Amino acid sequence: MTWTMARRAERLNPSTIRELLKLTERPGIISLAGGLPSADTFPVAALRQACDEVLAQHPREALQYAASEGFGPLRDWVAAELEAQGLLADPGRVLITSGSQQGLDLVGKVLLDPGSAVAVESPTYLGALQAFAPYEPTFHALEGDDEGPLPAALAAAKGSRFAYLLPNFQNPTGRCLGAARREALADAALAAGVPVVEDNPYGELWYDAPPPPPLAARLGGQSVYLGSFSKVLAPGLRLGYLLAPAALYPKLLQAKQAADLHTPTFNQRLVHRVLATGMLPAHVAATRERYRAQRDAMAAALSAHMPAGVHWQVPSGGMFFWLTLPPALDAAALLPRAVEAGVAFVPGGTFFPQGGHANTLRLSFVTVPPARIAEGIAALAGVLRGA
Amino acid sequence: MTWTMARRAERLNPSTIRELLKLTERPGIISLAGGLPSADTFPVAALRQACDEVLAQHPREALQYAASEGFGPLRDWVAAELEAQGLLADPGRVLITSGSQQGLDLVGKVLLDPGSAVAVESPTYLGALQAFAPYEPTFHALEGDDEGPLPAALAAAKGSRFAYLLPNFQNPTGRCLGAARREALADAALAAGVPVVEDNPYGELWYDAPPPPPLAARLGGQSVYLGSFSKVLAPGLRLGYLLAPAALYPKLLQAKQAADLHTPTFNQRLVHRVLATGMLPAHVAATRERYRAQRDAMAAALSAHMPAGVHWQVPSGGMFFWLTLPPALDAAALLPRAVEAGVAFVPGGTFFPQGGHANTLRLSFVTVPPARIAEGIAALAGVLRGA
Repeated sequence: MTWTMARRAERLNPSTIRELLKLTERPGIISLAGGLPSADTFPVAALRQACDEVLAQHPREALQYAASEGFGPLRDWVAAELEAQGLLADPGRVLITSGSQQGLDLVGKVLLDPGSAVAVESPTYLGALQAFAPYEPTFHALEGDDEGPLPAALAAAKGSRFAYLLPNFQNPTGRCLGAARREALADAALAAGVPVVEDNPYGELWYDAPPPPPLAARLGGQSVYLGSFSKVLAPGLRLGYLLAPAALYPKLLQAKQAADLHTPTFNQRLVHRVLATGMLPAHVAATRERYRAQRDAMAAALSAHMPAGVHWQVPSGGMFFWLTLPPALDAAALLPRAVEAGVAFVPGGTFFPQGGHANTLRLSFVTVPPARIAEGIAALAGVLRGA
Repeated sequence: MTWTMARRAERLNPSTIRELLKLTERPGIISLAGGLPSADTFPVAALRQACDEVLAQHPREALQYAASEGFGPLRDWVAAELEAQGLLADPGRVLITSGSQQGLDLVGKVLLDPGSAVAVESPTYLGALQAFAPYEPTFHALEGDDEGPLPAALAAAKGSRFAYLLPNFQNPTGRCLGAARREALADAALAAGVPVVEDNPYGELWYDAPPPPPLAARLGGQSVYLGSFSKVLAPGLRLGYLLAPAALYPKLLQAKQAADLHTPTFNQRLVHRVLATGMLPAHVAATRERYRAQRDAMAAALSAHMPAGVHWQVPSGGMFFWLTLPPALDAAALLPRAVEAGVAFVPGGTFFPQGGHANTLRLSFVTVPPARIAEGIAALAGVLRGA
């Protein structure tokens, strides 16, 4: 063996979710496991029109190498959108990324040394743990309650390179931070000098009321804000963005250039063209309506079928319900039985930076129509009752 | 200041080329500086057709999240193509990347610890130095002659994590390794146990005869091979690939997943659709014909205009001429004067891992039509005569 791997390669390991999910791809299974948006929401006609226009009008630019920062008019659009959310944004600090996952990788690359502390919610987005892990940080799990991470826990994380927070309809729990908790968390971060990396893939998917303003609106230059077009348009285009303070932007830009030169020009121009039609607000409203009905269907099915001892809260947005089972049950061990019964979910333990919590699981309500949701939840409830 | 950066951020610095090139964007300048393919070669009609078909037939899959490995039929195409070049390739070891630049980043991430030695040609592709640098290696410049790096130098690089080599029409020199030198280099690498990362963005752009088989054909599992669709189709789609040995593939795949989940599904399906029409061989032949005429125009102009003391070889492929000026001249210092005279180039020093070599420069012949090439070279010769 002539290959010697980097030490960080030890931290690159297959997602246990991915392995489990192979089980769930059998035809006929009602999969509540996926983290995908519904393909029914993809704006196919608008994209066909955009392809035609971009390739007719700007083929030479759309298919050529381009600036690492991203397509200027798309950066302008993002800055305006973030200003509307209450952020101090200027296009010069917007970086277009290959999905917001890439933003996580770039943040890790620029900010994390081996042994650096990173404060994370517990549970948190698994893809962020995977993006940061190769830079060999120590994950510091923030204590929380039903309303989210505790400000005192964030204050106690002083010295962390950053805190990674998902205020809106978090993956996996669906939890949305209230306005008061946001303010308290931002103030704790400012007082402790802990920068915040705020990830917001789900903010537009609210079903009851829009979420409060982002933490970054209060944190300003002490935050990096990540956004995505994956949930409001289509993930297969791989388009996200970040807003960084002037002190960090040049290093993130260099890291981006080293990583893949730039995000595909063609995709950036397509999405900009779609946005320029002004279709997004109505499109997102329609997506909300669809997902709200499915959320309601899952809430009703859970109430109707789940045995005593299984707990959940109805999420006010996003894509997921989070279930807590009686402590003796192990969701991963139950998954094969659920698949036998025709339904799949994601065991929750994998979302915890320090493991444990085997009695939790995540259910997605966005890709399965209401009638099938009811059927799937009934089947899952049967398995839980049997266990 | 609450942000603390990673130590590796010191190795993330703006490319001096990029800064210089801003000078050259003035209208009217004949830019021989770019590293871009000619937009005249982009297969716009085939891509429009592919967009129509993909969005009509497979919109739900093309716009959805997908496997980190890449689109199966595209991986099959790549494996077959590499088999035809003499490699032992199977689709299970092909990873689709966001441009071959991303392949370089992933290789660095998986293989380089701080202080690891990486053997590189001198000069070499600047983007590779930029991709590897944040992983804090030590660059070991391989001694070479006019035919490329010396096998004895590679043997002396025993202990390097890998040697990064560009056998075909190297950026920046245009040099193509002959068959005997390839064999000797591969044998030296095998004897010394130095793995090779072989980068081949330009192999299809040959103007006299196809290049000899890749080093990887002789090296097998002791090599990673990188390829790209940027030069034969269009760079703005950001599509590349790598072939890795089974021992490395899982770690590269995990690194890819952590970096951006997957390369855009839509782009992969578009390119696969274009390839499936069978248009590539004729398309590449037409590109070769165009670039060959431009190379010949630059060769003729250099012979006609350059003063004594300026040296170059006519490249048999790729995109670049490499000029060596008299030792007293500094190409970077001459660039502003050249821009005044209406022509731009890239100073060569930046391509050397250890710097120096200020009396070299790179000229691209692919984006400027023959008459303008002659005009540009005449202007450049005037500046050099004046210096």
